[in-house]
Amino acid sequence: MSTRLPCTVEARDTWSRARALTFQTLHGSVETPIFMPVATQAALRHVDLSVASELGYQVLLANTYHLMIRPGIERFRATGGIHPFMRWGHSVLTDSGGYQVFSLSKQTKISEDGALFRSYTDGTKIMLTPERSIEVQRAIGSDIMMVLDHCISSTSDTQALRHALERTTRWAKRSFDARGNSPQSLFGIVQGGCDEQLRIESARQITDIPFDGFALGGLAVGEAKQLRDDTIEFAAQLLPEDRPRYVMGIGTPIDLLEAVRRGTDMFDCILPTALATQGVAYTSLGKVDLRRGVYRAVEQPLDAQCPCATCARFTRDYLHHLVKARESIVPQYLSVHNLTFYRSLMRRMREAILHGRFRELYENEALRLMATDLEFPT
Amino acid sequence: MSTRLPCTVEARDTWSRARALTFQTLHGSVETPIFMPVATQAALRHVDLSVASELGYQVLLANTYHLMIRPGIERFRATGGIHPFMRWGHSVLTDSGGYQVFSLSKQTKISEDGALFRSYTDGTKIMLTPERSIEVQRAIGSDIMMVLDHCISSTSDTQALRHALERTTRWAKRSFDARGNSPQSLFGIVQGGCDEQLRIESARQITDIPFDGFALGGLAVGEAKQLRDDTIEFAAQLLPEDRPRYVMGIGTPIDLLEAVRRGTDMFDCILPTALATQGVAYTSLGKVDLRRGVYRAVEQPLDAQCPCATCARFTRDYLHHLVKARESIVPQYLSVHNLTFYRSLMRRMREAILHGRFRELYENEALRLMATDLEFPT
Repeated sequence: MSTRLPCTVEARDTWSRARALTFQTLHGSVETPIFMPVATQAALRHVDLSVASELGYQVLLANTYHLMIRPGIERFRATGGIHPFMRWGHSVLTDSGGYQVFSLSKQTKISEDGALFRSYTDGTKIMLTPERSIEVQRAIGSDIMMVLDHCISSTSDTQALRHALERTTRWAKRSFDARGNSPQSLFGIVQGGCDEQLRIESARQITDIPFDGFALGGLAVGEAKQLRDDTIEFAAQLLPEDRPRYVMGIGTPIDLLEAVRRGTDMFDCILPTALATQGVAYTSLGKVDLRRGVYRAVEQPLDAQCPCATCARFTRDYLHHLVKARESIVPQYLSVHNLTFYRSLMRRMREAILHGRFRELYENEALRLMATDLEFPT
Repeated sequence: MSTRLPCTVEARDTWSRARALTFQTLHGSVETPIFMPVATQAALRHVDLSVASELGYQVLLANTYHLMIRPGIERFRATGGIHPFMRWGHSVLTDSGGYQVFSLSKQTKISEDGALFRSYTDGTKIMLTPERSIEVQRAIGSDIMMVLDHCISSTSDTQALRHALERTTRWAKRSFDARGNSPQSLFGIVQGGCDEQLRIESARQITDIPFDGFALGGLAVGEAKQLRDDTIEFAAQLLPEDRPRYVMGIGTPIDLLEAVRRGTDMFDCILPTALATQGVAYTSLGKVDLRRGVYRAVEQPLDAQCPCATCARFTRDYLHHLVKARESIVPQYLSVHNLTFYRSLMRRMREAILHGRFRELYENEALRLMATDLEFPT
């Protein structure tokens, strides 16, 4: 059992598999279920880091692949890591570059040793091996490091999925060894697409290694939503009870509710800020696409229930005007709102689990959150 | 004497023509010298309005021409004006559309009646007359309205300049009559390019009308810097001592120091936020263009003297990284800094005038502020 990430299971829901954990990183307590905003290159999109802190976010996600290209490992060594670099006092989780192995696979040569990329800044070749990824993450100084995994499309054939999961296991062992005496936590990643037998094999191999937590990789990369939910439900049970479970790259509000219900704890997604860029806000009654003329002259806030600085001040009419005028402040005002929406959802889920009311919350919220994937005319 | 803008001259500098005024608008006290950030379409670029308020800005500038096109006069009538619309509790000054008469002149037909534009949203024709501009500004509900003027390039020939200033006078009278019983203040605009005789004629005609304040128009539209300073010095004396004097569209930090020294009080410019968009920050030792590689690995803030949230937290190294990474947060972090720089400059000028230290400030700052127009390597 690892001692690098002391973790307490504070409550288990009796109706579902939902749980509430508290674990300790090098930078403080983290309470689950948790959503981690994405700060790929050591900054959030549109939102001052101090706002994320005020909203109560406890972990940001940054990306090893991007940060090793720019600003580069030497800058992190010189500045003492990403926390002083971006002036963030809470926890940071670094993705390993495994997602780029998937998303940039057409321009990448993947071998047993690792993945060979070309830098997007100057075209030089970059070899990302499991050991190199850990070396970079150690320099970045994240609280939670991820192993480099071989992520492929979840809709690939069984042979390709098995090949990728076996390589992921070999890379996981190399990553674990590469961590050495670093005090940083390290999470393993279970692959296997949506194939139950493969998930069993991968989970057995990965959980044999004493990682501090475990992620379900290879999801949100092409599979249907129901299949994803089923895979999460099946695969979550294969992971140790007393360690955090992280589903990488999800999701929408309803995705988060469904994944928590199925026994997973940690999530990340670009959606709250990416939708804000487009002029779209989440509300308790559905998504509001402020580009639409129907919001002209609507003198209500985005969401009357929302305590955020945007809803406290601005009407849909005004926000619609700003979107039409292409004012650069729009993504900021909407990101603050969307991040408040996500934070509130996670907080309510945790409270419900702690107080034995998760079923009630689920039954009240599931339809409403499904509706957040739809657009309503007003 | 107008009573719509009670104004006190609190101090006059003995070494220069600099003054410190306090005047009362419908939304509070305004202390000069003052810089007014530009909120053309009822929003600041990149910066939450609450930040401008926290920095102590007392007046924002909005633009009649743009706001009449979008969201349109009906929205302001319905919402009760721009203050509730954008949730700004301090003062607003509206430009009349006169600058668009100049800047869009190639696509505009200008006649004695007014200026005929085409809307950039749907191509429909828009007739902007002096009366129409005041009607729109009354609906917008600004604290200070500007008359529609006929602004032409300051380098035009004498005949064209005289023609424009005489039309400006006729339009000023029509604007004054159109204000009617509105409690909003109204400023006249003196034209005449850089020709002293024409400035005298224009000032005589415009100050004959009991406006609440007076602007020098037709500057920062092509003339050399020294000629602009000379024109401000000459023209400022032609205006009533006890009314605010506003130089439209300037300027850089050194422009503001020179204009205050020459007896003017109010200024607006897009520079603080426009430079931020480019990755450029003002500092007490010169402009810092964060796109430049020389700022990599520089672990000092933009300006060690600056109390802003950006300088309190971030190194030039980190900000350079964000600029290179094209992170969308950059213009926000730099705008907060640049607006802090401008606000601090105006505050220090006012304090110096009030305490008889303006010469000292000028002699200390002029070279440094001239340097802010230059770039330094580190």
